[in-house]
Amino acid sequence: MNIRFFNARILTMEEGRDVFRGELWVKDGRIERVFSENDAPDGAGGPSPRWDKEVDCEDNLLMPGFKDAHTHSGMTFLRSMADDLPLQEWLAGKVFPLEARLTGDDIYYLAKLAVLEYLTSGITSIIDMYLDPAATAQACLDMGMRCVLVSGLNSFTSSVQQMESEYKRWNQKDGLIHYCLGFHAPYTCSRELLAEVADLSWRLHAPVYTHLSETEKEVEDIKRQYGLTPGLFLDSLGLFRYGGGGYHCVYLTEEEKELFRKRGLYVITNPASNLKLASGIAPVAEYDRRGIPVAIGTDGPASNNCLDMFREMFLVTALSKLQEMDASSMDAGRVLYFATVQGAHAMGLWDCDLLSAGKRADLVLIDLKQPNMQPIHNIPKNLVYSGSKANVLMTMIDGKILYWKGDFRVGEDVGRLYAKCQGIVGRLLGDGR
Amino acid sequence: MNIRFFNARILTMEEGRDVFRGELWVKDGRIERVFSENDAPDGAGGPSPRWDKEVDCEDNLLMPGFKDAHTHSGMTFLRSMADDLPLQEWLAGKVFPLEARLTGDDIYYLAKLAVLEYLTSGITSIIDMYLDPAATAQACLDMGMRCVLVSGLNSFTSSVQQMESEYKRWNQKDGLIHYCLGFHAPYTCSRELLAEVADLSWRLHAPVYTHLSETEKEVEDIKRQYGLTPGLFLDSLGLFRYGGGGYHCVYLTEEEKELFRKRGLYVITNPASNLKLASGIAPVAEYDRRGIPVAIGTDGPASNNCLDMFREMFLVTALSKLQEMDASSMDAGRVLYFATVQGAHAMGLWDCDLLSAGKRADLVLIDLKQPNMQPIHNIPKNLVYSGSKANVLMTMIDGKILYWKGDFRVGEDVGRLYAKCQGIVGRLLGDGR
Repeated sequence: MNIRFFNARILTMEEGRDVFRGELWVKDGRIERVFSENDAPDGAGGPSPRWDKEVDCEDNLLMPGFKDAHTHSGMTFLRSMADDLPLQEWLAGKVFPLEARLTGDDIYYLAKLAVLEYLTSGITSIIDMYLDPAATAQACLDMGMRCVLVSGLNSFTSSVQQMESEYKRWNQKDGLIHYCLGFHAPYTCSRELLAEVADLSWRLHAPVYTHLSETEKEVEDIKRQYGLTPGLFLDSLGLFRYGGGGYHCVYLTEEEKELFRKRGLYVITNPASNLKLASGIAPVAEYDRRGIPVAIGTDGPASNNCLDMFREMFLVTALSKLQEMDASSMDAGRVLYFATVQGAHAMGLWDCDLLSAGKRADLVLIDLKQPNMQPIHNIPKNLVYSGSKANVLMTMIDGKILYWKGDFRVGEDVGRLYAKCQGIVGRLLGDGR
Repeated sequence: MNIRFFNARILTMEEGRDVFRGELWVKDGRIERVFSENDAPDGAGGPSPRWDKEVDCEDNLLMPGFKDAHTHSGMTFLRSMADDLPLQEWLAGKVFPLEARLTGDDIYYLAKLAVLEYLTSGITSIIDMYLDPAATAQACLDMGMRCVLVSGLNSFTSSVQQMESEYKRWNQKDGLIHYCLGFHAPYTCSRELLAEVADLSWRLHAPVYTHLSETEKEVEDIKRQYGLTPGLFLDSLGLFRYGGGGYHCVYLTEEEKELFRKRGLYVITNPASNLKLASGIAPVAEYDRRGIPVAIGTDGPASNNCLDMFREMFLVTALSKLQEMDASSMDAGRVLYFATVQGAHAMGLWDCDLLSAGKRADLVLIDLKQPNMQPIHNIPKNLVYSGSKANVLMTMIDGKILYWKGDFRVGEDVGRLYAKCQGIVGRLLGDGR
């Protein structure tokens, strides 16, 4: 498919480049060309038979898609079912018993529901950790979603052998799906299992991702068990030799911050989840000043409960301002960088970060003609401080338009999918619905 | 206009009443009847010539509109122009110099822009404090918005005489517009001026509203100046004898909390603004437990920067959970009550609170058929934790549909209004646009 976007404002997210008016051409899943109206190439401008589709952007904004760097897509069944509860009660009383009844088929449909929501929020790729990665991968493949699977290995399910076979399977199969080594958390894996993960990481030269220091309690527990804080304990096993990162990282110590900086480990922050589960505020502004790369995730729909990068972006800047009691902390442009460019890098998707020639065509069209985007004085600030998923006109992944003005183009009847997921919830709750 | 909404789910917000399926009838600006499908009155059900319009809600949700209990509509011109700055630099360096160049005509158009945004977020009434209340009132009247004006009296502009004449003018003119006594803040009014306000309040038996204890600094300043914390100082002048309330109330002391409870004063919380300006977190869950009535406001677009009650609702519950480090703090249903019923009461709009016969028809239709609202397990939790303005299908005020599936029905060309406001910004900045 050759697609021409014209009459657009364009935010490429290249460093130092402001929004400009121009065109963007897509060819076979990649961006062929991006240029300003003052710099049009010969032969550009008019309609031409070379285009399969021409989109008049009507002076709205093209920008890179948002990268949701931590989620559990299959958990949509828990939305509004396990809220307003203390963490342990939430996990043990609600999440685990229902999860025990999930089938791979359930996860496939529940992940598809999450993909619809990503598209409404302009999210073009995710890092997903959940039970049965194959089911999530298939859901993403069938709908056209770009997904980095990461293992949720722990001492109770799965194994390092299985992770290795998944790694080899999903890093070959399709350009939309990638796979990262990982494990659930230091408190759900034995030391022996973690040593096996480290060994595999060395053999594959692959980075490792995990939940890390989400709550004070888990930090204390690991210190008591191993005599080291979680990040230092994992590093002592060699788990971060080839990089990787941690989800949440609310409670990193001074030494762990230095470790993250030195090794270039990603902090993937999940502010809505950290509030809703009363975990705390990750000191993201400080991480950024120290040179630790930060990306943003929604976490799963059980703990957030929505999959909306606009809400997360506002929270990243707003909570930094609160935490540092300084309204100048963490400006909007920096947050936008985390949510797009640095998110792509955390995912290892180096060709999905910017709007420039040769990059994958993962992009969104943002409606500037809604009252929350007016007047137009500073577009990045408009996006972060007053933007909303209601401003997402189009979401394109790998050169395909999957969402257009409220309609999904994902080869799936949306009403049927809603009914299917509602049926799964009914079955899990045993109410015969 | 007689309008029949059928095939709806209905959340009346009456205490103890769950969502049910049924119909709602509107007649001449008021709700004529609300009933469940199991309880239909004789002759109900079919099309009939008595209806001017029949709306098939397609199993989506009718509920009371949101009440934005603190805003400054005319400040839309400052969106994305004064962010990421410390508070004093923000006020003195950006806000005041630009405001000095505003005309009443400017405020009229800028307030109209804000009204469009309220409608997209399902907001059916506002408490508005800004320069030139007449301009804001006219904007609301011309567009059909319900507005409670509140005086922003201070020692530099306006006077108590003017407030009295505004009070008399706007509480007679039109059912859509009301007027409350108020003043900007204890730190911008002299003691003499405040005593005059108290005197007027006693003569009119009228409640008084003001910014109160938004920052630690202002609390300390007032204590130094008057030997009392702001709430107690104002009460010592008799300002709260007839009720009223405070915007923000981040730093109320123990004695002030007791004062608020005893006098039934409203705390109107503005969580996004308090984060963005690094003011702090108001202890709303504690206020609520003590029996202090809480309502929610967006604050103005200069300090938020959007006018979106979904964002505020999430923040009220999420920040309570953080502040109390307890995920069970402040459940969703309570927040929804603040944002609708108690907001209406804070405004003195006792006939705009619930969906029941005889109440004003200020209501919204919420799209449940978007992925963020699926599966449907608990609708109030869906609204507060995963809802978004993108779910607002319709906003009706006083029986008139003003917003319907993205289109505004407000007698105003939206593109022309955007251009007008953009022009005002250009003129204020002196760039000749």
